[in-house]
Amino acid sequence: MKARIHITLKTGVLDPQGKAIQSSLGALGFSGIDNVRQGKYIELNISESDPAKAEAELSRMCEKLLANTVIENYAIDLEA
Amino acid sequence: MKARIHITLKTGVLDPQGKAIQSSLGALGFSGIDNVRQGKYIELNISESDPAKAEAELSRMCEKLLANTVIENYAIDLEA
Repeated sequence: MKARIHITLKTGVLDPQGKAIQSSLGALGFSGIDNVRQGKYIELNISESDPAKAEAELSRMCEKLLANTVIENYAIDLEA
Repeated sequence: MKARIHITLKTGVLDPQGKAIQSSLGALGFSGIDNVRQGKYIELNISESDPAKAEAELSRMCEKLLANTVIENYAIDLEA
């Protein structure tokens, strides 16, 4: 089963990488862009075939390793 | 208009970050995980309200700054 995980900074947490992208886009002449936020995107295959169990397992992975839950949120999407 | 951009390594390009995540998950006792690939996820607001024009503009941003199109693919999702 394929899983996609998005890890994003919580609202209110400063995102210097996003700010850098935003100012670089401005310097390249792109206008009308704001609120740029950069996050991480992880794709993986999990052998667990029960979606509920797979999601629980993936949540544990996010809590323990993938996300810093003090400043980051995570979202899990499963694809059959 | 809100846009979400996914930037992923092309198939066949080595992903050491993904490999590191995979081996760390194994070391933490998670089993049955493979093919871990890490990419980038960017959210932004674009003032252009025509979806076709916004998508064209976002493609130019990806080509010029956000993605390294030699080794990376990008995908753009627009949300009204």
